[in-house]
Amino acid sequence: MSEKRVGKQSIVFNDPPIIVSYASVAGKKESEGPQGKYYDIASDTDLFQGKNWEEAESRMQLMAANTALEKSSFKSEDIDYIVAGDLLGQLMATSFGIKQLEIPLFGVYGACSTMGESLALSAMLIDGNYADRVVCLTSSHFATAEKQFRFPLGYGNQRPLSATTTVTGSGALVVTSPRCNKVDLNKTQLRITGITTGKIVDYGIKDPNNMGAAMAPAAYDLISCHAKDFNTDFSDYDCVVTGDLGMVGTNILYDMLKTENISIENIHMDCGMHVYDRKKQDAHSGGSGCGCAAITLCGPILKKMMDKTWKKILFIPTGALMSTVSFHEGNTIPGIAHGVVIEA
Amino acid sequence: MSEKRVGKQSIVFNDPPIIVSYASVAGKKESEGPQGKYYDIASDTDLFQGKNWEEAESRMQLMAANTALEKSSFKSEDIDYIVAGDLLGQLMATSFGIKQLEIPLFGVYGACSTMGESLALSAMLIDGNYADRVVCLTSSHFATAEKQFRFPLGYGNQRPLSATTTVTGSGALVVTSPRCNKVDLNKTQLRITGITTGKIVDYGIKDPNNMGAAMAPAAYDLISCHAKDFNTDFSDYDCVVTGDLGMVGTNILYDMLKTENISIENIHMDCGMHVYDRKKQDAHSGGSGCGCAAITLCGPILKKMMDKTWKKILFIPTGALMSTVSFHEGNTIPGIAHGVVIEA
Repeated sequence: MSEKRVGKQSIVFNDPPIIVSYASVAGKKESEGPQGKYYDIASDTDLFQGKNWEEAESRMQLMAANTALEKSSFKSEDIDYIVAGDLLGQLMATSFGIKQLEIPLFGVYGACSTMGESLALSAMLIDGNYADRVVCLTSSHFATAEKQFRFPLGYGNQRPLSATTTVTGSGALVVTSPRCNKVDLNKTQLRITGITTGKIVDYGIKDPNNMGAAMAPAAYDLISCHAKDFNTDFSDYDCVVTGDLGMVGTNILYDMLKTENISIENIHMDCGMHVYDRKKQDAHSGGSGCGCAAITLCGPILKKMMDKTWKKILFIPTGALMSTVSFHEGNTIPGIAHGVVIEA
Repeated sequence: MSEKRVGKQSIVFNDPPIIVSYASVAGKKESEGPQGKYYDIASDTDLFQGKNWEEAESRMQLMAANTALEKSSFKSEDIDYIVAGDLLGQLMATSFGIKQLEIPLFGVYGACSTMGESLALSAMLIDGNYADRVVCLTSSHFATAEKQFRFPLGYGNQRPLSATTTVTGSGALVVTSPRCNKVDLNKTQLRITGITTGKIVDYGIKDPNNMGAAMAPAAYDLISCHAKDFNTDFSDYDCVVTGDLGMVGTNILYDMLKTENISIENIHMDCGMHVYDRKKQDAHSGGSGCGCAAITLCGPILKKMMDKTWKKILFIPTGALMSTVSFHEGNTIPGIAHGVVIEA
């Protein structure tokens, strides 16, 4: 077994890849929410000058990638790989969003865990000397997701209160090798110091309006595995961030972790519960989608790390691996989670 | 720039990852075709004892992975990662097919180029010491693809002669580190010696019944880039394998390569033109789908390499990055291709 691997499912980076820049693009409702001021592009429309919702989502991805590139001062031709994906069938937002960047592409799908998968693969490609600079990118859009998984918005269907609201947003990060960007001790630098890669976890939940419950076991499995692999009780972390478990999923996660005497209540944050104002904004059970974890990471979370409010976090976006077909055929909703350790 | 990188988009492995085993599972029509005798599981039904087509495709993936694992003598708990994907929205065949294997998963999507993407990422994860053993897996199924991209089979719709037939099949490979399996000079071993990663290439083709034309520019771009990166005129290759360009796409590819004075006609093979008997089997313009390149690679191609008929190939599955929504919205069909050099 390689010395880079720790425990069963984790990797530790001794010379960690550096996040040199990040950017977030958010839709109207998200921009009006409590995190609005942290987004690079806070839009007052969800169309982003596209002709339809799918094009809007593609345009968000391109804006996020271009903004992150601008902030990094790299051009697209300096980038070795882009590791990107979204929720739409055949990764449509990515395929059409980023083609003009002309960067070699690895398309990835991990449902709402996609940003975790993208960061994990990118960190290994960089640490292993296969790339010097990689862009990680993902998105989701309320209207494209409703159209694909539920009903087109024009139908005006009613959504149950247990349903989450798919976040309209896109997040991008430029990750580089420490060989290119040496750590400047006078400057805060964000580094990816470890990863824990998730397995598919299926506890038999079948309700597509209760995705928190479907994904909580995957988050539990990942956290439990991370604790063993890194031999930690999480006292060395400032925050354990989950993607979009919502209230129901969060409570299930706490209960499951109790069986292993792991307590993260005091340092846990679920992006889905922070992206909207629960009192003022009608977002039902909170936010979800690839964009939820992505804009929260590339907005308030990394901001808190840049000003050293937080020095070490475990970022665990969670995904529900259902399709538009699977739950109509009576299938369960398997979950997956990918953990990424980020240190300032 | 890292010394592992060659040229703009390629990686060379000095201590190449080893393909220790591979397996192919094929549907009825494929099993009756000219390559039938090369498949590990040649089925006389397309349902594979599933209750519906999606479940059938999931079962194929599990059978392919399990057969490859058996042949490798590894168990699923010995495997560090599985890098897998398929054509269905939200990678449904993978999500439901492999959950019982309980292997950390990187879900990937590159349309019909998925096996190339999976092999490329797996080779880097192994060569970089992040994994010792990885399973690469993909599939496609005629009935699930028709249902998703065109019409459910029950409608009995007519398909134009220019349309390809999505292959019902799944291929799996177990790739390991040379650190675990030393090269035995008395035994043929298959090794991944290099990769060239593709960009999205879009020449504006809009006809979903002419995917060969949509993907040919991506294959051209990849081959042209590979020639420059590896400084080769392909005289050192026994075969350049494309995935599913068909007759139309193949001719376009040859014409495009002529503009750069690259000639591969004598050593080129397109899996889509070999998977069915063009005279006896009504497969319209040939085979396509992730499964087409996968079962041809994990069937006749690697067989030819094991008996040293071929010693070095460039495997380039090509993908059409359209979705069920995109072409109805009048979008083009962007293509992508991923190249993998395999040597015996």
